[in-house]
Amino acid sequence: MSIPEITQKLLASKKEKGLSFADLEKILGRDEVWIAAVIYRQASASPQEAKLLVEALGLDANYIEELTQYPIKGLGPVVPTDPLIYRFYEIMQVYGMPLKAVIHEKFGDGIMSAIDFTLDVEKEEDPKGDRIKVIMSGKFLPYKKW
Amino acid sequence: MSIPEITQKLLASKKEKGLSFADLEKILGRDEVWIAAVIYRQASASPQEAKLLVEALGLDANYIEELTQYPIKGLGPVVPTDPLIYRFYEIMQVYGMPLKAVIHEKFGDGIMSAIDFTLDVEKEEDPKGDRIKVIMSGKFLPYKKW
Amino acid sequence: MSIPEITQKLLASKKEKGLSFADLEKILGRDEVWIAAVIYRQASASPQEAKLLVEALGLDANYIEELTQYPIKGLGPVVPTDPLIYRFYEIMQVYGMPLKAVIHEKFGDGIMSAIDFTLDVEKEEDPKGDRIKVIMSGKFLPYKKW
Amino acid sequence: MSIPEITQKLLASKKEKGLSFADLEKILGRDEVWIAAVIYRQASASPQEAKLLVEALGLDANYIEELTQYPIKGLGPVVPTDPLIYRFYEIMQVYGMPLKAVIHEKFGDGIMSAIDFTLDVEKEEDPKGDRIKVIMSGKFLPYKKW
Amino acid sequence: MSIPEITQKLLASKKEKGLSFADLEKILGRDEVWIAAVIYRQASASPQEAKLLVEALGLDANYIEELTQYPIKGLGPVVPTDPLIYRFYEIMQVYGMPLKAVIHEKFGDGIMSAIDFTLDVEKEEDPKGDRIKVIMSGKFLPYKKW
Amino acid sequence: MSIPEITQKLLASKKEKGLSFADLEKILGRDEVWIAAVIYRQASASPQEAKLLVEALGLDANYIEELTQYPIKGLGPVVPTDPLIYRFYEIMQVYGMPLKAVIHEKFGDGIMSAIDFTLDVEKEEDPKGDRIKVIMSGKFLPYKKW
Amino acid sequence: MSIPEITQKLLASKKEKGLSFADLEKILGRDEVWIAAVIYRQASASPQEAKLLVEALGLDANYIEELTQYPIKGLGPVVPTDPLIYRFYEIMQVYGMPLKAVIHEKFGDGIMSAIDFTLDVEKEEDPKGDRIKVIMSGKFLPYKKW
Amino acid sequence: MSIPEITQKLLASKKEKGLSFADLEKILGRDEVWIAAVIYRQASASPQEAKLLVEALGLDANYIEELTQYPIKGLGPVVPTDPLIYRFYEIMQVYGMPLKAVIHEKFGDGIMSAIDFTLDVEKEEDPKGDRIKVIMSGKFLPYKKW
Amino acid sequence: MSIPEITQKLLASKKEKGLSFADLEKILGRDEVWIAAVIYRQASASPQEAKLLVEALGLDANYIEELTQYPIKGLGPVVPTDPLIYRFYEIMQVYGMPLKAVIHEKFGDGIMSAIDFTLDVEKEEDPKGDRIKVIMSGKFLPYKKW
Amino acid sequence: MSIPEITQKLLASKKEKGLSFADLEKILGRDEVWIAAVIYRQASASPQEAKLLVEALGLDANYIEELTQYPIKGLGPVVPTDPLIYRFYEIMQVYGMPLKAVIHEKFGDGIMSAIDFTLDVEKEEDPKGDRIKVIMSGKFLPYKKW
Repeated sequence: MSIPEITQKLLASKKEKGLSFADLEKILGRDEVWIAAVIYRQASASPQEAKLLVEALGLDANYIEELTQYPIKGLGPVVPTDPLIYRFYEIMQVYGMPLKAVIHEKFGDGIMSAIDFTLDVEKEEDPKGDRIKVIMSGKFLPYKKW
Repeated sequence: MSIPEITQKLLASKKEKGLSFADLEKILGRDEVWIAAVIYRQASASPQEAKLLVEALGLDANYIEELTQYPIKGLGPVVPTDPLIYRFYEIMQVYGMPLKAVIHEKFGDGIMSAIDFTLDVEKEEDPKGDRIKVIMSGKFLPYKKW
Repeated sequence: MSIPEITQKLLASKKEKGLSFADLEKILGRDEVWIAAVIYRQASASPQEAKLLVEALGLDANYIEELTQYPIKGLGPVVPTDPLIYRFYEIMQVYGMPLKAVIHEKFGDGIMSAIDFTLDVEKEEDPKGDRIKVIMSGKFLPYKKW
Repeated sequence: MSIPEITQKLLASKKEKGLSFADLEKILGRDEVWIAAVIYRQASASPQEAKLLVEALGLDANYIEELTQYPIKGLGPVVPTDPLIYRFYEIMQVYGMPLKAVIHEKFGDGIMSAIDFTLDVEKEEDPKGDRIKVIMSGKFLPYKKW
Repeated sequence: MSIPEITQKLLASKKEKGLSFADLEKILGRDEVWIAAVIYRQASASPQEAKLLVEALGLDANYIEELTQYPIKGLGPVVPTDPLIYRFYEIMQVYGMPLKAVIHEKFGDGIMSAIDFTLDVEKEEDPKGDRIKVIMSGKFLPYKKW
Repeated sequence: MSIPEITQKLLASKKEKGLSFADLEKILGRDEVWIAAVIYRQASASPQEAKLLVEALGLDANYIEELTQYPIKGLGPVVPTDPLIYRFYEIMQVYGMPLKAVIHEKFGDGIMSAIDFTLDVEKEEDPKGDRIKVIMSGKFLPYKKW
Repeated sequence: MSIPEITQKLLASKKEKGLSFADLEKILGRDEVWIAAVIYRQASASPQEAKLLVEALGLDANYIEELTQYPIKGLGPVVPTDPLIYRFYEIMQVYGMPLKAVIHEKFGDGIMSAIDFTLDVEKEEDPKGDRIKVIMSGKFLPYKKW
Repeated sequence: MSIPEITQKLLASKKEKGLSFADLEKILGRDEVWIAAVIYRQASASPQEAKLLVEALGLDANYIEELTQYPIKGLGPVVPTDPLIYRFYEIMQVYGMPLKAVIHEKFGDGIMSAIDFTLDVEKEEDPKGDRIKVIMSGKFLPYKKW
Repeated sequence: MSIPEITQKLLASKKEKGLSFADLEKILGRDEVWIAAVIYRQASASPQEAKLLVEALGLDANYIEELTQYPIKGLGPVVPTDPLIYRFYEIMQVYGMPLKAVIHEKFGDGIMSAIDFTLDVEKEEDPKGDRIKVIMSGKFLPYKKW
Repeated sequence: MSIPEITQKLLASKKEKGLSFADLEKILGRDEVWIAAVIYRQASASPQEAKLLVEALGLDANYIEELTQYPIKGLGPVVPTDPLIYRFYEIMQVYGMPLKAVIHEKFGDGIMSAIDFTLDVEKEEDPKGDRIKVIMSGKFLPYKKW
């Protein structure tokens, strides 16, 4: 789970500039999670988006090119060891089959797209302890028959 | 990924009775995903909840006991092969690190609880194809120092 | 890689009746590979399709119900050991990255859907040895930005 | 899944020259997927093919030698994590047994060669969304008895 | 690595009849290793071969059908634990790359077919200890370019 | 499956000198597969053999020492991905148990040594396509009782 | 299980200064195990804690920044090979289910938090051989129903 | 992670009798976690302890014999999927190296025994949420030199 | 790691008869570890040895046949979880390379046979705690050159 | 299974000095296998032992420090591929359960310590081929009850 060099560079500049992902969201007009995905080289930006990002971070223009390329995606370790990421893996270990049952009942045989897909994170303030809200929205894709 | 016998029995009765998970939601006063988790033996019901469920499905009272036990949880295969469940695994492979970065920035060092946690599924109607909305809400747990 | 009981039953009847997958294709009005997928419980039939299939095989009507259910999909062993199936795994080991490069160049960042997807097998007669032609067609799904 | 240095070099030159794989297809008289396989060091070129490729990319002649060598082939990770490549792995998880059944019925006991084998990618324009067509053609190899 | 029931049945009859694999070789006109492969359900016999085998073993005719089917092939455990079989795995761990180098030099880029393939075992008597001679012969398959 | 530096160096010199493994066989008086095993650091040469090899390749004498050392042996990846090497792995997946049965019948309980062992490769010319002949000869080692 | 450079640097300085973890405990006002976790980059310090640590070790102030970052956590190898760490893994292999049974009986369905969690090590002097006492204390988190 | 039949039988009787592990602790004069380990067949009882346990549960005397046997120990899955047990695995992933460092500093080169070892669970009442306290005590075993 | 039925039967009779492995050693004239290996179906007995063993245990003569067959050997789980067996695995993890270095220095390039091999267990009484002495003796097999 | 730099350095000096492990045994007054374990960084020396070793090898005094540190132990690959080391792994695959049975019968429920443990290698001259004798001696540790 080594972090690519370009990612390290961008994160360092972001820190130095004191910019949050939310700040970048306003500058690029894209969601902060998606922007983080571009920085971690899991998503590809358009030249215009890459330019806005690189300029916001005060970096050299030659980073633009790399951010528009189509990366080889994926985290690496089969079972993630980082506790934050593991919890999402565990959620699927525990609630995967129940989720499948409910989705099939509501939609029929098919899947939720992980490509035509958005992912948002919100903070829910709560006196008993703040909560993390993660909202996934993916197009339902019914299995084609042929 | 073999389905426990009690799960098969409950699902068969549910089908015969023509009850949806949403119907059970109204009867038990619990979310349909959580009820599906009880049926798949990934969550344990209170005696009262188990009674309501077993009666709604027209089954023998001796199923009540089993539904209140604390199950050994987990799906089994390290990498799930069912395409619907795999997509959620892939989402973490692709968006795991970006998500971690955004959560840490918003909340600090800690995790989203997978225990003090809820999971909802909604159908978003969309002329370009309906969308599946999955909403997770977990308490933020900051790492304790000692 | 154990074969489900219903699959064994259906294949035995198909053999006894002397029906080829191509014959079933004519009866159901669906492609033979998809019909084989229904028989191997990797795809779900409509009640009408299930009825046609069960009747063609001269089987009891109570198989119809099971063929319409949404199965837990997947072959099982991580690396398949059967030589015929392994060759397709090897093709991706060898040609996976070249294929990715060509698809990205032609279509941009996205994937080929394995859900909105068809798979056909044809026999190409050839004096130097017949050839197997496998044609996959999947909708291109561009990565959504948000 | 690290990309070999020579591959990076060739892809960079290809980009700089503004050449598509389809352009290289015309120059070398070989299919674009096969050319991509040579570039990713999964296939070996003849000296003449290597020369045409290296010259088209405006690179030094000392790359020719390396492109004619017989590489150690294979992608690396047992289960690919890149979503585009994973979909092809999933196709075999889901449709592997049905495909085996249909091929055996049409051809007898044997396999489709992954060596005497071609792989083409075509774009099917479709108003509901363009489709990727992947055509594989491999010689049928019957199991020898002895 | 559980042995299929039919295999156990055939081996038991073979033992009872006092027939060696070499005896079966004479009866079927096929090599003893191939016959053993049929018995272990790794190869499929013609109806005539199956009949000869079943009759030689004095078994019921209804075994004939099963021996002509195309089996799902493969041993099971990724790394074999039985010492006799492991040695062949070790041979490839140790001599795999040297073998590849010599074959490529003699034949070019391609592989030895494991389908158009024969395997013989001979006993070499030797005063210092008998030797097992294993002779593999597979068609060379050159990589196709396209 | 990274190639050791010394192996790369030796193979480069061998290529430059235009020497085949068969040529080295004549120079060293050892089989070409064994010589390839020395070059890939899977076998250790005597000082005299190492000297002959290093001189034939026109290399510096300080390589001699390294070639006489006892290497840590083994290929690396549990299931080889290179198609040529995989075929030998597949042969054991398919024919491992039949081979075990025939060897036990001919020799009793024991194994074929992979240490007191030779491996030869021959080219069988054949109008229907040349064949690769691989001949293994290993001492039979009966299990000791005590 | 490679040790990060910063960890090596800190441990070297700690050794040179002749400081024990217990000494650092007094300086930082934090438990020695937690401080070791910061040094091994499994926990993140506050700027003040990082400053105290870096100064105690006589290191350059630019290490402070890195120690406050949120690390990607986890040891690496699935089954640890170091005997000291393996024993704790074995304890869970052997006593995991009994522990689960006792915790569920005392607390109900839920888990022990590994986040709101402390870990202490004490030395119990004992004439028959000193004992290591490891005390874990984690908040009980009951499974939420929804 | 299937539960042995004898374990299921004992747990069912324990439930029917309304006995807690703490009750059994008083009857046997052994810690409740150790008794749970006997019930889960991870520890072996003396005939006297087995007799007390079987009688307390009102079961047939022929269970006594089995509880005194030395079991094959271990949980099974390499990475546990049950969230409660996983947390202890995660603790070692995160705090394993820091723990090793502190233990080595306090005791020298050696390990904590997992055999001469005790494990206790206590409930710490806490207004902010009860805490689970797990106390492990193992003999320090220094590495022998010879 | 399931125990074969015949093993369970033999062990039960051995217990009932009150015979130790050492008693069987006297009856068969073979070492107790080897006899245990026959009982666990990891070694094959001669008809005479099988007869002596079966008679000593007072069992039916039809067990004799099975004990003379050549078993599929191996324990099963890649990394053993039983603590007693794991320690031997750990010994190789820790002392494997040093052992290799010493053996190569004393004997040259080769291995210790695990076939022409004996294994004895002795009890060393010691006031500080009895010791288990395990003595392995295997023929040195030098690597053949050819 | 990469060899640490310090190990390579020590082994090179040992070779240059023409010292065998047996020579070092005399100089340090420790067994040769244990000394090899120090050199391979699987065991830690006292400052005095490290000094003797470093001086015997004619190396710089700054190696002394490193040899006294407590290493992260373990070989690496789950299943060793080097044939010499694999044979010991195989011995446990084949004789692990028989060994467990004999040890339990002689000693009761417990294990052989791999920490309070010695390992010796002896050469047994034998006209039929020399034998390697490996003697392990570990303290018996009975499972504690509590």
